[in-house]
Amino acid sequence: MSEAISQAPVIILNAPQLAENIGAVARVMANFGLSELRLVNPRDGWPQERAWALASGAEWPLNAARVYDTVTEAIADLQTVFATTARPRELTLPVLTPRSAAAELSEASARGERLGLLFGGERAGLETSDIALCQAVVTIPIDPRFRSLNLGQAVAINAYEWRMTVTEAAPPNFRPGPGPATGEAMLGLYEHLERELDAAGFFHPPEKTPNMIQNLRSALGKARFTDQEVRTLRGVVTALSRGRGKVLEKIAKTKGEGA
Amino acid sequence: MSEAISQAPVIILNAPQLAENIGAVARVMANFGLSELRLVNPRDGWPQERAWALASGAEWPLNAARVYDTVTEAIADLQTVFATTARPRELTLPVLTPRSAAAELSEASARGERLGLLFGGERAGLETSDIALCQAVVTIPIDPRFRSLNLGQAVAINAYEWRMTVTEAAPPNFRPGPGPATGEAMLGLYEHLERELDAAGFFHPPEKTPNMIQNLRSALGKARFTDQEVRTLRGVVTALSRGRGKVLEKIAKTKGEGA
Repeated sequence: MSEAISQAPVIILNAPQLAENIGAVARVMANFGLSELRLVNPRDGWPQERAWALASGAEWPLNAARVYDTVTEAIADLQTVFATTARPRELTLPVLTPRSAAAELSEASARGERLGLLFGGERAGLETSDIALCQAVVTIPIDPRFRSLNLGQAVAINAYEWRMTVTEAAPPNFRPGPGPATGEAMLGLYEHLERELDAAGFFHPPEKTPNMIQNLRSALGKARFTDQEVRTLRGVVTALSRGRGKVLEKIAKTKGEGA
Repeated sequence: MSEAISQAPVIILNAPQLAENIGAVARVMANFGLSELRLVNPRDGWPQERAWALASGAEWPLNAARVYDTVTEAIADLQTVFATTARPRELTLPVLTPRSAAAELSEASARGERLGLLFGGERAGLETSDIALCQAVVTIPIDPRFRSLNLGQAVAINAYEWRMTVTEAAPPNFRPGPGPATGEAMLGLYEHLERELDAAGFFHPPEKTPNMIQNLRSALGKARFTDQEVRTLRGVVTALSRGRGKVLEKIAKTKGEGA
């Protein structure tokens, strides 16, 4: 029942073009009780007066908005982030409606997780590599005959669905155990693995590397590893790759002794 | 149940002020499969070029929009009309959320009724006398701390809820996607990984091995890998461990040459 306990999702706009749309997003965030806004590479820089003009008084999300260079940085401290996109992808992430996404976010919030909803820019949408950093894809059930959904509307639908879970919410569960690791921790794991794979000659041909990395990340991301599991898996990567070193040492030693 | 039979609600805007908002309404109607727009006393007359400019190509609701002098005339041929308003009234009409309103409209549509959703102008909203002509009031659950909801957003939320009744199905543009791999395939991955980890000296002390294996398996199992992902991850394990072999070969060769 308590509204105070549940923590609303952060809204992350990747490469938004029009300041007016950022203002409209702030307004609708305020309508539905969201307040934390993050901007990744806003096209026209930040701050932009026209955003405030379009917010109709919903200034606090704009005043507190933080700007990032990459999606990776913008979601580094978050544990559960869903990407909103209308286009099909070659990823194996779950595809949710805004309603089922809100239900999942609500449960994650009750467990104390930090949440985010990621939206692409007006024209380009989201890169698959950014979506691969998320735990699910949210698709608004728009009519296939007219897919051009305004950014503010896309945020509105999702924010409304979040709000519906808050106003109808059951009391939060007891915390069952450790939550999923943050985006930053996951990225640490991914980069560690990719470094070692690269050293082992795994990424070939080179032009397929981005795609291979993306598929690996989205596959592993689905597991929602805890911090402890991330540490274990980094140990796995180290063992497999350093195993190399150990055996080498041994061999070198033997060779040396033998020589 | 059939989408062909169900007739979408007419959207009626009473005394809309900004042509831009009328355009935004047309756009979001198209997004969610609505097409019939009626305007009661648009402030700046009709047609207005700026409406078309803001509709992003959703021109058909604008081209076919009909203009009326009064709400009474605009709803004369409709059987079930709900009024969207945020303010409390001295009326005994049922008060619905957009979700329950959409459910009721859907049922009425299935009975063959002609439906409408009535929205007030940007500033004034709806007169109580106009609401009294309707069969229910729809109230969007906005945060009482910031009630200023954009007209286009109000239509969007209701149109979205209507659309959800038409299609609860998963969005058609996403292929259902491959299911998770079998237990046998997962076990193959686990055993492959564990064999290589064992060779690399990962499992120590020995008495903790069963526990470590268990934790690894349950961490990876959460991802519900597809068959393709299992193959990729076995490739990862092979690359990391055989990277070893490659380097060993190279070293052995060098040593051999050096000797």
